[in-house]
Amino acid sequence: MRYQDTGVDISRAEDALARIRDRVRATKRPEVIGDIGAFGGLFRLAGTDTVLVATTDGVGTKLEIARLLDRHEGVGTDLVHHCVNDALAMGAEPLFFLDYFSTSTLEPEIFARVVGAMADACRAHGCALLGGETAEMPGMYVPGAYDLAGFLVGGVARDRILDPAAAREGDVLIGLPSTGLHTNGYSLARAICDRAAARAELDIRSFLLAPQPELRGASLGDALLATHRCYLDDVRALRAAATVRSIAHLTGGGWEGNLPRALPPGLGATVDPNAWIVPPVFRMLVEWGGVADADAFGAWNMGIGLVAVVAAADERAALRALPDAIRIGMVERTSGPRRVRWASR
Amino acid sequence: MRYQDTGVDISRAEDALARIRDRVRATKRPEVIGDIGAFGGLFRLAGTDTVLVATTDGVGTKLEIARLLDRHEGVGTDLVHHCVNDALAMGAEPLFFLDYFSTSTLEPEIFARVVGAMADACRAHGCALLGGETAEMPGMYVPGAYDLAGFLVGGVARDRILDPAAAREGDVLIGLPSTGLHTNGYSLARAICDRAAARAELDIRSFLLAPQPELRGASLGDALLATHRCYLDDVRALRAAATVRSIAHLTGGGWEGNLPRALPPGLGATVDPNAWIVPPVFRMLVEWGGVADADAFGAWNMGIGLVAVVAAADERAALRALPDAIRIGMVERTSGPRRVRWASR
Repeated sequence: MRYQDTGVDISRAEDALARIRDRVRATKRPEVIGDIGAFGGLFRLAGTDTVLVATTDGVGTKLEIARLLDRHEGVGTDLVHHCVNDALAMGAEPLFFLDYFSTSTLEPEIFARVVGAMADACRAHGCALLGGETAEMPGMYVPGAYDLAGFLVGGVARDRILDPAAAREGDVLIGLPSTGLHTNGYSLARAICDRAAARAELDIRSFLLAPQPELRGASLGDALLATHRCYLDDVRALRAAATVRSIAHLTGGGWEGNLPRALPPGLGATVDPNAWIVPPVFRMLVEWGGVADADAFGAWNMGIGLVAVVAAADERAALRALPDAIRIGMVERTSGPRRVRWASR
Repeated sequence: MRYQDTGVDISRAEDALARIRDRVRATKRPEVIGDIGAFGGLFRLAGTDTVLVATTDGVGTKLEIARLLDRHEGVGTDLVHHCVNDALAMGAEPLFFLDYFSTSTLEPEIFARVVGAMADACRAHGCALLGGETAEMPGMYVPGAYDLAGFLVGGVARDRILDPAAAREGDVLIGLPSTGLHTNGYSLARAICDRAAARAELDIRSFLLAPQPELRGASLGDALLATHRCYLDDVRALRAAATVRSIAHLTGGGWEGNLPRALPPGLGATVDPNAWIVPPVFRMLVEWGGVADADAFGAWNMGIGLVAVVAAADERAALRALPDAIRIGMVERTSGPRRVRWASR
């Protein structure tokens, strides 16, 4: 199975963006630093050394699993963590967050569980929940469905901005484990689960709730709803201990879609997929769906949620600072369209 | 007909918000100024006199009319203007904007029309389109539907913040005409149109496209898709000419839902509804739907999109600065739950 088979096509999104790129560029003000395609937009306010970093994200169809299993708290936390990590990839720390909650018929109890969890996640990471919008739109969503969008503004001193241009040949790639799919690749995962449930002659809910031996008795629902890990403390510790050139947050588009965003043109990455153990939930999905490696690594993080590009001389210091970090590869010259090379598989 | 009959219930949203208020308050950082309920959140960055104003909005089910009539450009513009006006109500000017576009199956051509128009509106108002998220979520939206959210950050010098606490008894209310419903009250408007179309034995599309004598030959579709007016130039001119105490942007919740947001506790507004001519589109909807006055003024702006509270001594200066502005009432002491009193009707 491939992502395209599930109705999600990243090339369609790229086509859509290409159509408006020039009109977006035309909105640039002198305060804007950098171009489209970074993990966050940079805006330099006059009169201060602090550069603002703005980012927006959604939770995608992980929402559908939360709804199916009536476990709504996680997705609020997921959204905040996703946005915080994007800000971290630019070098910034979170300042404030706003949310958009949209549904056909508002259920106050579910809203409170989702947005309450968002507020708690904001507080845990020192981020103010500064505003939000709640939209009730009868007939737009399928019954019971809701959508979430988050918007985060962070701040970074100008000389602490992480810029992909700083990465060099020979830098090492330090990977930090993910807790699962985080908030990406769920349409593919759901399609695979639907098919596996049908094969097992179970309805999807029972299938997701059944204990799985490969997950040590946890259910697939537990694994798929595991909270998107927030790397704020890790990145703080890492930057205190080592020279970090740039950071990639592995989200939609997986490895090839995100790791090159932390590298300048002409450079690529060689990654050793045996450097870490791919968590069981990914292996189960790959097997059930007959997903080719390129498609799996192009849709999911496969067990690594954030990759820091670190000066080679600082490799040991970096690994000492982060107990669960792993050296997963290095930066190399590259040519050709694909910029992530797999050392062996 | 009342709003509640259409499946949208503002008291449900208030209930939902009440459940999380304490958890949201707990996220407050020292940089946050003010409390929940303003038109935008205020955040004071260390080291600069500029206070950031953040706001988020959606377009609501106006999207459904745009989709029905295949006129998608307007809603992108609407969203930017809505956000800019909310920032203006806090005294701020726009700095940057981010969008969230979400649908079941992305249609690049429609996306480009919507988001391209957003980019153009940003440029027209000197606002950088700093980022965006495009989400493809199969099965979440009814076929062809998409949702939009916008996030805007503006800036205001600390001593230029508009604070409802500044409004005084005797201040005058200066109203600025709207171009129509702007982006609020569409679920009610659509329900009324559906019923009127059925009565006329027309499908809803033909009904919306038919020329209407009351609209001087324009169609109801034209009237309902009129662009949300942006008051940036008006507010600039007004503040240059007069002492503006505070501003209300009349959006969801209509008059009672928004005008009190520009006033301190204990003060209310007396408004003369005969001070301006209610535009035909509102009169048609009121008549077809048998909508009571209180419900109409509680759902729609009824022809006034923004109200500035101005020092009484500056009334003439304000009206001179804004050719189409109207004195619509004044600030008075009040008691009781309703804070907008209608002088006569």
